[in-house]
Amino acid sequence: MNENLHIQREMDDKPGEECGVFGIYDFDGNDIAQTIYYGLFALQHRGQESCGIAVSDTEGPKGKVDSCKGMGLVNEVFDAEKLENLHGNIGVGHVRYSTAGASTRENAQPLVLNYIKGTLALAHNGNLINAPELREELAYGGAIFQTTIDSEVIAYHIARERVRSKTAEEAVARAMQKIKGAYSLVIMSPRKLMGARDPQGFRPLCIGKRGNAYVLASETCALDTIGAEFVRDVLPGEIVTITQEGIKSDTRLCQKQQTAHCVFEYIYFARPDSVIDGVSVYHSRLMAGRYLAMDSPVDADIVVGVPESGNAAALGYSLQSGIPYGTAFVKNGYVGRTFIKPKQSSRESSVRVKLNVLREAVEGKRVIMIDDSIVRGTTSDRIVHMLREAGAKEVHMRVSSPPFLWPCYFGTDVPAREQLIAYNRTVEEIRQVIGADSLGYLDCSRLRQMAGDLPICTGCFTGNYPLDPPMEDIRGEFEQ
Amino acid sequence: MNENLHIQREMDDKPGEECGVFGIYDFDGNDIAQTIYYGLFALQHRGQESCGIAVSDTEGPKGKVDSCKGMGLVNEVFDAEKLENLHGNIGVGHVRYSTAGASTRENAQPLVLNYIKGTLALAHNGNLINAPELREELAYGGAIFQTTIDSEVIAYHIARERVRSKTAEEAVARAMQKIKGAYSLVIMSPRKLMGARDPQGFRPLCIGKRGNAYVLASETCALDTIGAEFVRDVLPGEIVTITQEGIKSDTRLCQKQQTAHCVFEYIYFARPDSVIDGVSVYHSRLMAGRYLAMDSPVDADIVVGVPESGNAAALGYSLQSGIPYGTAFVKNGYVGRTFIKPKQSSRESSVRVKLNVLREAVEGKRVIMIDDSIVRGTTSDRIVHMLREAGAKEVHMRVSSPPFLWPCYFGTDVPAREQLIAYNRTVEEIRQVIGADSLGYLDCSRLRQMAGDLPICTGCFTGNYPLDPPMEDIRGEFEQ
Amino acid sequence: MNENLHIQREMDDKPGEECGVFGIYDFDGNDIAQTIYYGLFALQHRGQESCGIAVSDTEGPKGKVDSCKGMGLVNEVFDAEKLENLHGNIGVGHVRYSTAGASTRENAQPLVLNYIKGTLALAHNGNLINAPELREELAYGGAIFQTTIDSEVIAYHIARERVRSKTAEEAVARAMQKIKGAYSLVIMSPRKLMGARDPQGFRPLCIGKRGNAYVLASETCALDTIGAEFVRDVLPGEIVTITQEGIKSDTRLCQKQQTAHCVFEYIYFARPDSVIDGVSVYHSRLMAGRYLAMDSPVDADIVVGVPESGNAAALGYSLQSGIPYGTAFVKNGYVGRTFIKPKQSSRESSVRVKLNVLREAVEGKRVIMIDDSIVRGTTSDRIVHMLREAGAKEVHMRVSSPPFLWPCYFGTDVPAREQLIAYNRTVEEIRQVIGADSLGYLDCSRLRQMAGDLPICTGCFTGNYPLDPPMEDIRGEFEQ
Amino acid sequence: MNENLHIQREMDDKPGEECGVFGIYDFDGNDIAQTIYYGLFALQHRGQESCGIAVSDTEGPKGKVDSCKGMGLVNEVFDAEKLENLHGNIGVGHVRYSTAGASTRENAQPLVLNYIKGTLALAHNGNLINAPELREELAYGGAIFQTTIDSEVIAYHIARERVRSKTAEEAVARAMQKIKGAYSLVIMSPRKLMGARDPQGFRPLCIGKRGNAYVLASETCALDTIGAEFVRDVLPGEIVTITQEGIKSDTRLCQKQQTAHCVFEYIYFARPDSVIDGVSVYHSRLMAGRYLAMDSPVDADIVVGVPESGNAAALGYSLQSGIPYGTAFVKNGYVGRTFIKPKQSSRESSVRVKLNVLREAVEGKRVIMIDDSIVRGTTSDRIVHMLREAGAKEVHMRVSSPPFLWPCYFGTDVPAREQLIAYNRTVEEIRQVIGADSLGYLDCSRLRQMAGDLPICTGCFTGNYPLDPPMEDIRGEFEQ
Repeated sequence: MNENLHIQREMDDKPGEECGVFGIYDFDGNDIAQTIYYGLFALQHRGQESCGIAVSDTEGPKGKVDSCKGMGLVNEVFDAEKLENLHGNIGVGHVRYSTAGASTRENAQPLVLNYIKGTLALAHNGNLINAPELREELAYGGAIFQTTIDSEVIAYHIARERVRSKTAEEAVARAMQKIKGAYSLVIMSPRKLMGARDPQGFRPLCIGKRGNAYVLASETCALDTIGAEFVRDVLPGEIVTITQEGIKSDTRLCQKQQTAHCVFEYIYFARPDSVIDGVSVYHSRLMAGRYLAMDSPVDADIVVGVPESGNAAALGYSLQSGIPYGTAFVKNGYVGRTFIKPKQSSRESSVRVKLNVLREAVEGKRVIMIDDSIVRGTTSDRIVHMLREAGAKEVHMRVSSPPFLWPCYFGTDVPAREQLIAYNRTVEEIRQVIGADSLGYLDCSRLRQMAGDLPICTGCFTGNYPLDPPMEDIRGEFEQ
Repeated sequence: MNENLHIQREMDDKPGEECGVFGIYDFDGNDIAQTIYYGLFALQHRGQESCGIAVSDTEGPKGKVDSCKGMGLVNEVFDAEKLENLHGNIGVGHVRYSTAGASTRENAQPLVLNYIKGTLALAHNGNLINAPELREELAYGGAIFQTTIDSEVIAYHIARERVRSKTAEEAVARAMQKIKGAYSLVIMSPRKLMGARDPQGFRPLCIGKRGNAYVLASETCALDTIGAEFVRDVLPGEIVTITQEGIKSDTRLCQKQQTAHCVFEYIYFARPDSVIDGVSVYHSRLMAGRYLAMDSPVDADIVVGVPESGNAAALGYSLQSGIPYGTAFVKNGYVGRTFIKPKQSSRESSVRVKLNVLREAVEGKRVIMIDDSIVRGTTSDRIVHMLREAGAKEVHMRVSSPPFLWPCYFGTDVPAREQLIAYNRTVEEIRQVIGADSLGYLDCSRLRQMAGDLPICTGCFTGNYPLDPPMEDIRGEFEQ
Repeated sequence: MNENLHIQREMDDKPGEECGVFGIYDFDGNDIAQTIYYGLFALQHRGQESCGIAVSDTEGPKGKVDSCKGMGLVNEVFDAEKLENLHGNIGVGHVRYSTAGASTRENAQPLVLNYIKGTLALAHNGNLINAPELREELAYGGAIFQTTIDSEVIAYHIARERVRSKTAEEAVARAMQKIKGAYSLVIMSPRKLMGARDPQGFRPLCIGKRGNAYVLASETCALDTIGAEFVRDVLPGEIVTITQEGIKSDTRLCQKQQTAHCVFEYIYFARPDSVIDGVSVYHSRLMAGRYLAMDSPVDADIVVGVPESGNAAALGYSLQSGIPYGTAFVKNGYVGRTFIKPKQSSRESSVRVKLNVLREAVEGKRVIMIDDSIVRGTTSDRIVHMLREAGAKEVHMRVSSPPFLWPCYFGTDVPAREQLIAYNRTVEEIRQVIGADSLGYLDCSRLRQMAGDLPICTGCFTGNYPLDPPMEDIRGEFEQ
Repeated sequence: MNENLHIQREMDDKPGEECGVFGIYDFDGNDIAQTIYYGLFALQHRGQESCGIAVSDTEGPKGKVDSCKGMGLVNEVFDAEKLENLHGNIGVGHVRYSTAGASTRENAQPLVLNYIKGTLALAHNGNLINAPELREELAYGGAIFQTTIDSEVIAYHIARERVRSKTAEEAVARAMQKIKGAYSLVIMSPRKLMGARDPQGFRPLCIGKRGNAYVLASETCALDTIGAEFVRDVLPGEIVTITQEGIKSDTRLCQKQQTAHCVFEYIYFARPDSVIDGVSVYHSRLMAGRYLAMDSPVDADIVVGVPESGNAAALGYSLQSGIPYGTAFVKNGYVGRTFIKPKQSSRESSVRVKLNVLREAVEGKRVIMIDDSIVRGTTSDRIVHMLREAGAKEVHMRVSSPPFLWPCYFGTDVPAREQLIAYNRTVEEIRQVIGADSLGYLDCSRLRQMAGDLPICTGCFTGNYPLDPPMEDIRGEFEQ
C-alpha cells in the first residue's frame, strides 16, 4: 500500500501531501458521521494513506466514543454499514499522509484515548520540531507510546496539563506552551469540540457553520462540500472551543510569535477552490502564472498546464501574455492507490500510463508548458519528450514555484537534498536535463506576492525558517 | 456495486458507457498480461462494472487458457500476483458496462469456452438487435446459455459455423452473416488473434503494432498508453486475422451495408486523445464548441466547461467567440465506485460532493457553461444554481450535442423516454427547468460536420436508425 | 486455495471427497435459501472447494433465478446479506470437491442456465465415464463449453432432449439414456424440483419432508440438520419429480443394470449419522471394526481410533475383542482451508500441528490403533512414531478397509497408483514402512458384509468395476 | 464478529474462554514468526476473537519490532506473506477472548509500545482485580489510555518502574507489587524474553526448549505442537528472564501468597493433552468421570459424552462403572466464527445444526450423558430431547463440575447470576427444566481431588475467593 503511495508521488513528482482534519458539533443532536465522511472526502487530496472518524453523543454516556480507522482512501475504509454504526452528534475525522511515523494501522488518526477526565479524540495536521525531546522527557516520566506519531506526544501533554487545569481548553493552552512546530488540531472531548493552530499558523484551519452545527476543517472546500458557510479562519496561536453555549476563543498565544503560513499550501497542497487565511488558492496560482509571464516571457502558440495542478498557472500565464490557453494532456483518472506500476524494463512507462498528449492540440506548435513544481525532475523530461513526439516544435517549461532546495520541518515531505533536481544544478543545467527549449522558475520574491502579501514560510526554497530547525533528528529511535 | 454505478451515472447525468476490448499477439513469445492490464486501464472509461483478461501461450499446449475476471475496476480486480499467474503471449481483455445482460460476475467478459476446435476467448463491444431471435433459435437446437449477454450468442454462432469451416476466421465470417447490430469483436483462438467490426462500424476498433507484437483496441489511446504505433482502423465489416505470418484481412462484408459510426463516441464516450476512423475526438469536440458559438451566440465574460467532458467544447466556443476561456469548477477526483451517495434528505448533495465552484473565477461575471449532453437534467439545474450562488450574474448553458429523444439499440444506455428531460419539452421549457438565462443545443445538422463528415448514426437524436430496430424486445425472457 | 486443499488431504492421507447436493421445494412459498445453507453446511464434509445456491420463486416470473457461488466453505461464501438476497421457495445447492474439472470459480455449481424452456439449475455429485466422448459429440454439433465439469455435459443433454420432450422430467430420462457413470442429480426448473440417480446407484440421494416442503439431499444428516423427516432413498436409476401436486417417480431405468453402491461412502465419505440405502454408516463402521477384531486379533491394553473417522471402527474392535476403548489423540479443530503448511525443512510437522498424543492414555501400554484407510501412508508412520514417543510399548495398526490398489472412475479421487503405499508392496512391507508392530487390513470379503449385504462397487480395492472403465482418458483436451 | 462469538458460546453453553500467550527466543538467530503461528494455533481454543504476533531481531536495531494483529482466528489473520514480513528471532504471540475491554481491533494483543528503554511487547492472560483503581491513579498522573484492556495498565506500571530500575525484569518485579489478580505474562524487550505469573498462579504458564530456543506458553500442548520439550512450569509469583546467557529466575514473590490455580482450566478451558502444574488435564477429566460414577451411580446401557469436552469424563464414568462407553453424537466441525445462526423463528435450531444424534447408538437404550459444565442450560434440554427423539429409553445427565453460582474475577467469563440455570434452583428443579430422568453434578469436595490435590480456586462454584473481589466495579467508566 505504502509502496503504491510512493509510486504515485514519484509518478507525479510532487512533494508529499500532509494531512487533513475535520470536526463537527451538531447542537440539534443529529448523527454526523456521514457529514464527516463527506468532509474528509473533500480533504482527501491532503492524505491518502489512512483515515478515520471518531464520534460521540453529547447527550449519551460520557466518554462513549465510536470510532473506525483504516488504511486507504475514505471510500475504501468506510461503507454504509460502518458509517451507520458511528453514532453521535460530535466528532472528528482525519485523512493522513505520513510525514513522521511509519505508515501503519497503529498510526492512523484520530487518536482516541482515555485520560483523567474521560475520553479525548484528537486529529492533527503538521509536524512538531521538538517531538523527539518531548518524547524522551515523557518516557523518563514513565510514559508508554503505542504509536510513532507526534500526535501522541501532543495528547500526552494535554493529559498531563488536564490534571491541573480546570478545563480541557486550558489544558490544551498549557500543552501549546510546550510543543513547537506546525500543528492544526481538532480535538473532541465528551462535551466540547476544540480547534487549535500553532502560533506561526503553518497549516490552515477554518471555522464553518451549518444550521445549528459548528464545523472545523483544514480547508474551506470541505465546508462547501457539506453545505456549510465559512465563518472565519482560526488565528495563528488561537484555541477555539465550541460548546452548547457557542464558540469561545483563547488568543493568549496569538501574535506572540511571527506568523509564517506555508506557501506550498497555495502552490500545490490545497484545493484551488479553498480560501486560506483570506487568500483564494486559485487566485494565487493564477497570479503565479501571471508573474511567470512577466518575468520569464517567451513567444509561443499555446500555453498548457500539466494537469491538474498546473492548469491555473497556465491560465494566468495566458491571460497575462495573450498567448492562447489550451489543453495538451489527457489524464487517466482511474489511477488509484493499488495501481500496478510498470517495471522499469517494460515497454510501458508510468508517465504514459497516466498522461497522454493531445497530438491535435500541439502538433506543429510552440508550446509553453506550466507545472506547479519540480522535485526530482523524473517526470518533466518524459513530458517534454512526449510533447515533442506529438509534434510540438518548441517546448518551453515554466514552473510556478521556485526550485526546491531545503528540507521542510513543518509537515511537507520533500526527498533528501541529493534527490532534488535543483540541488547543485543551475537552471540552465536543469533545462538540459529535462530537454526543454527554455526553462523558467517563479522567483522567490514573488512568493509573498502570490500569497496576497501574507507572512509566509519559504523555508523549502530559501532555507530561512521561522523557527530554528532541530539540531539533530533523534526521532529514529522511536520509530518501529 | 451495481447500485453505485447507477449513482455515478445519475450524478453525472450521462448515458451509460458501453464496453472496451483489447487484444495482443506477441510473436516474440513474451508474456502480455501486464500489457493487457495497461491497455484495459486506458479503456476504463468505456466500462467500470467488470473486467477480465484471458491469455494463452501459442507455443504451449493447445487450448490452455489462463483467465481472470471480476466485478470492479481494472486496478481493483487485478493485482501483481494475479497478473503473474496469467501466462501467454496472446490474449484478450475486456472492460464492461452492462447495456444488455444483468450486472453479475457470470456476465463478465472475455467469454472463455471450449468448442469443436479447442478454446476460444471472445471480447465484445456493442449490442445485437437480433440477439433474442438468435437465442431462441439456438435454444430450439438444444443450446444452453450460462450468461445473458449477446456475446454468448455470437460465440455459439462461431462454434456452429466452425464445424463446417476450414478456419476459425471463416467461422467468424459466417457467423457475421447471421448477427445484426453493433459489434466490435476481439477473438483469441489457440494460434490466432482476430478482430471484427460490424458492417455499419458502430463501435470503434483499431490495429496497432509494438515491436513484434500486433495489438487490437477499441481506441487509439490504448495504443499510446502501451507505446504501440497506430496502424489503421479495422474497416466496417472487416475481419482481421493475426497469425505468426502477419495480418490477413477479409473484407467480403465491407461496403455491403451503409456505414453508420456512433456519433456519441465523439460527443462523450471516447477519450479525447483517441482518433477514431480518422477523426480526432478532441477536434470534433472543439468543433462542436465552435458550432455552438456560431449558432447560439451570446455575450458573456467567460466560457467554462462542465468537467471533464465539457472542457474541449468550451475551449472551442471560446476560440470561436473570442470570449475568454476559464475554469469554474473543481471536481473531486476521488469519487469511486464504492462512494456512498448522500441521502435525498441529507444536507449534502451528490453534485456538491463531486463538484465545487471557483467563486473567484465566476463572481460578478456573465458565464457561458458548456456541457456535452443532458440526459435527465438532474444535474444541470444544480450546477446552474451553484454558479449563481457563487455570484455569477448570468448563466448561459450550451450543450455540445442535440437533445436526447430516442432509444439506442446499438450499445448506448439511454434511460426510458419519460425520464429524458427533452421528451415532450421545448428548449425554452427545458431552460426554465434548469433555470439558465439562456440555453442552446447543438443542431442535428452539425453532427456529421463535427465528426469530420463521416457517415454517422444519429438515432438517439433523430430516431432515424441505420438498421431497423427490433419489433419487440423479447430479451427479457432470457434475463435472469 | 486449491493448494491448501491438497495439503489437507495429504495431511489426512485420505482419498478426495466428492460433492454434496441439496434441493428443496416449499409449497407454502417460504424463502428457502437459509435452509439450503444449513443443508449444505451438513454436507460440507463432501466438498470444501466451492459451493453455491440457486433459488427461484414458483409464483414469480418464470425463469427468474437468484444464485450465488464462490470458492470456499459454506460459511465463507455466504453471509446474512447474501442469503437475504436469494429469494424463492424452490432451490438447489451444491458443495464441491473437484474430481474432474479444474478448481476454479467457473466450475462451481449449481450450473444455472437458460435453455429452450426457460431456466434450469443443476447440481451434480459423481463422475461420468463417457463425458469425453459426449463432449466431443456435442462439440461437433456446435456446442460451446464454459466449464470443464461433467455437469455441463449432462445439462446439454437435458437441453437437447427437452426440445423433443413434453416435460422436463422426460428430457432428464432421455438424457440418462446417454450418460454413463456416477451421478446423483438435483435439478430445478421454474416449477419443478427433480432428483435422479444413476442406475448403479453409486452416489447416495435421499428424499425428506418438512411440513409442506420436500427435500432432496445427498445424505440423511442434512435432513436431520434442517429438521426434516426421512421419506426414502431415491432408487438407483429413478427420477423423482416434485411439483405442487406431490412426488412422481419414473422407475423405467431401475433394475435394468446391476446396482453397485460405492462402499467408500460407508468407509469414509459419508457422515456416520447418515443412513444410506437403508444401512447406517455408523453401524457399518462399527462392523468393520468387529471384523478386524475377528480376522486380525492381537493382544493389547487399549484400542484407539485415529480421529475422527477411525473412532467408530475402534469402538467396534473394542466391543468385539473386549480390549478397552480409549482416546489417544487430540485433534486441533481449527485447521482450516487457509492454514499455512509447515515447510518440509521446518521443525514443525503437519501431523503434529493437527494431532497430538495423550501421553497419559498410552504410556506403557500396548496400543491397537485403527484408521479407516491408508492412501499414501505419509501420515501413518508419523502417528505410529508419535505413539511410541509418548511411551506406547507396542503399536498395532488396523485399517478398516482393504488396501487401495486401483483408480476410481466414479467420483473418488485416488492418487496415481505409484503413489499408493499398497502398490507393489505386501502387507508386511507396508508394516515395515510405517513401523508398526503388526498391521492388519479389512479383508475384501468383509466389504459387502459391512455394508449390510448391499450390492456394492469395490473397484478401488479389487479392480472389478460394475461398468467398463473408459479406454483412454481424453478429458485432458477439454481441460483449461 | 463479536456477535458470532456470543452465538458460539451460547450454542455451546460454556463459560467464555480467556486468552493464550506464547513467546520464543531462538539463540541461533532463526526467524520464529512461523513457530509462533503454530504455537498460537495450538492455543486457539483459549481465544478466538483476535490474535497477534510481535517479533524482533536481537542482533538488529534495538527497538525495531515487526507486528501484526487482527480480529479473527490465527489462520484468518495470518497468511504466508504476512508471516514472511515478520522478521526476528525473538517474539511473543497472543490469542484473545475478551473478558475485560471491548472486542475491538484496538484491544488486540500483544501490546507493542515504546518506553524509556526502547520497546516492549506484552501478551497477557488473566484479569486484574485492581485495574480500575490503578487506571485512575495513572490517569491522575497524566497517563493516556488507548485501549480498555488491563494489559495497558500492567505496561504502564512496568514503564514507570523501569525509570528507576536497573533491568527490565526488575521493573516487572516492582510492577507485580502493584497489580493484583490473575496474570500470566509473556514480555519481550529488545534483548530479553520474560515470563511472569501472579502469586496465586491462577492461569497456567510453562517453559519449553527446542534446540537452542527457549519457549514460553500457556499450555504444554503448544510445546508439543512445535516440537519443543517441556522444561517446567513457571511458579506462581515467579519471573523468568531468558537472555543469551540462559534462564534466570526471580522467586521473591513466590509462596508469599496462597496458591490458587483455576480449577476450570482442568474442567474445560485447557486442551486435554496439556499438563498444567504437573497434573494431566486429560487425567483430571477422567477422574471427574470416575467420581461421578462413584457419587451419582445409575444403571444404564451406555455412557456417552457431549463432544468434545464431555468425552474424557464419559470414559472415566465408563471405566469406573463398567457400563460400556459409546458415541452418541456427531458434531459438525465446520461451524466457524462467521456461521449464520438460525433465527429463533426458523425451523432449524442452533443445536441441531451443530450436533446430531447417532440413532443407531442410542435407540432403545438407557443412556448416561456426560457434559463438563452447564451454564445457562439452554443446550442441555435440547440434547436430552434429541436423545429421546432418537429412541433413548432413559436419559441420565451427569455434569463433571459443580453448579455455577458465582462470578469469576480472575479471567473466566460467566454470565450474570440471573442467567445461570443453577441460580435459585435445586438440582431437582434443574433436572425438570432439562427434562432428564436423573441429574448429578460433581461435588465441590471432589474438585481438589480431580486436580491432583493442587491448591485451587473454586470461586465460581463456592463463592470463596483467594483474593478479595473488588468492592465496586468502576471499570465501566473506561470502557469505550
